[in-house]
Amino acid sequence: MEAEPRIETALERAVAKATAPACPARLAEAVRYAVFPGGGRVRPQLCLAVAKACGDPNPALTDAAAAAVELLHCASLIQDDLPCFDDAPMRRGQPALHRRFGEDIAILVGDVLIVMAFDLVSAELPAYPLAGAKILQALARAAGAPAGIAAGQAWESEPTVDLAAYHHAKTAALFEAAALSGAVAAGGAYDAWSDVGRLLGGAYQLADDLADALGESATLGKPVQQDRQNHRPNAVASLGPMEAGRNLDELLARAKQAIPPCSQRGNVEAFLDGVGGRLCPPELREKTTAARVAVARG
Amino acid sequence: MEAEPRIETALERAVAKATAPACPARLAEAVRYAVFPGGGRVRPQLCLAVAKACGDPNPALTDAAAAAVELLHCASLIQDDLPCFDDAPMRRGQPALHRRFGEDIAILVGDVLIVMAFDLVSAELPAYPLAGAKILQALARAAGAPAGIAAGQAWESEPTVDLAAYHHAKTAALFEAAALSGAVAAGGAYDAWSDVGRLLGGAYQLADDLADALGESATLGKPVQQDRQNHRPNAVASLGPMEAGRNLDELLARAKQAIPPCSQRGNVEAFLDGVGGRLCPPELREKTTAARVAVARG
Repeated sequence: MEAEPRIETALERAVAKATAPACPARLAEAVRYAVFPGGGRVRPQLCLAVAKACGDPNPALTDAAAAAVELLHCASLIQDDLPCFDDAPMRRGQPALHRRFGEDIAILVGDVLIVMAFDLVSAELPAYPLAGAKILQALARAAGAPAGIAAGQAWESEPTVDLAAYHHAKTAALFEAAALSGAVAAGGAYDAWSDVGRLLGGAYQLADDLADALGESATLGKPVQQDRQNHRPNAVASLGPMEAGRNLDELLARAKQAIPPCSQRGNVEAFLDGVGGRLCPPELREKTTAARVAVARG
Repeated sequence: MEAEPRIETALERAVAKATAPACPARLAEAVRYAVFPGGGRVRPQLCLAVAKACGDPNPALTDAAAAAVELLHCASLIQDDLPCFDDAPMRRGQPALHRRFGEDIAILVGDVLIVMAFDLVSAELPAYPLAGAKILQALARAAGAPAGIAAGQAWESEPTVDLAAYHHAKTAALFEAAALSGAVAAGGAYDAWSDVGRLLGGAYQLADDLADALGESATLGKPVQQDRQNHRPNAVASLGPMEAGRNLDELLARAKQAIPPCSQRGNVEAFLDGVGGRLCPPELREKTTAARVAVARG
């Protein structure tokens, strides 16, 4: 997906504010390291795609919301990699933040990024009080408890796991907030767009589970079989590859169907198709299809 | 200080929302453990005292702000106790949260409490858009970077430390936000009240340093000499007990002088005196005074 200058600019502005000269130097360096260079920026791109489909009349608010969503995502990645979670040595081809700066700084960067997200949108409240308030509430719902990212990670510490609740909280909630925020910023039909985000987020988590269970480390550029090794719930382990693959396709199809009337439907569909294609690359697709064919013939 | 039912009620409501049935059970239990029973609740009481001095016309917003400030404080305590920071076994007479629930849950509870703080105040935005926005900005400034709590903790990882910046970020920033928020919620002169909070916060941090350097574990109910053992900056180590004690008195006096014209000046002065008295109990006061007398006689 091509880089979206609006997102990078908004993130740069937020990072510059947090790392102003008063900031301790190592923390400042680590905050920047957490945000740049980015990964796919899928969530903020979803936010922008939705806002554009609704005409995007308030781009400053859209950009703040998109960047806020990405900051919450970056915070969750840092924590995922910590020794008490996945103990991952690498992220985006570089040492994981705690390996480079220490666990103490990694935990503090997580705090700082979460605060930055709320700060960014709060700063737009004087111009957009009602829309800004709705976006802040959506960010809080997606990040915290009972059913946001923190709750999603906490499901991994429970003796029994509600897989749907886990997947929703860990991944879909932030996609939902991204789509909802884009719609709210642009005055669109946010309930419907929220559904689009939630369904795409569900597909994203299934694809992540498929990649972990069936993918190859060399192709993916990250270790696989992590869920099994860390005793984490995984949809492929629960449902089998065929059912997981079928659910993924269904969620992507339902995400497209959920798009409400808008001026740029084609662009949003293309965005969802693009994300969907990258979610399940050919070699994974073959494995779920092979499983399906085998069952059909059996 | 007597318990303030308004604060406990606001905190209880926030905890109930975050720990709704959808929340993973251990996380829910840990969130409650982090907030109840509380410590002195000094910061939210400062917020309330300031709001009351300004007439407190919007108690719902005041309560949200006060509880938000306390939630940010609770989050900082959990992190302070983690193995990669102070590695403290106990807090408020109970096992530290990470000892009871594990490091993973402790880190997630920190996230949840920060998110709850912003959620609480955001929920009041429809009724109080401008004041709510100002309070959210103050909370962000006090919690994150470049000069909030996270930055304050990060100063401990720097090779050289600006003691004033460290103390301001680690402690005074949240006191400042508490006082400012109470004033903003009540339509008061928030710049002046912000000074009161900052000065009281500075005194609080000095008292903390004095207690750590000169206090006795049995009297204080917590280990002492922690700053020295953890190679953390401490005002007594930098300035000596006499100068640190003198600065503490001066900050408390200046906090009282900074009180702007208001209907309940006496109540606020009594509140500051009460906090000041507890900050520096007689046995510590004797040690700084003894140092002063020795110098005067020398």
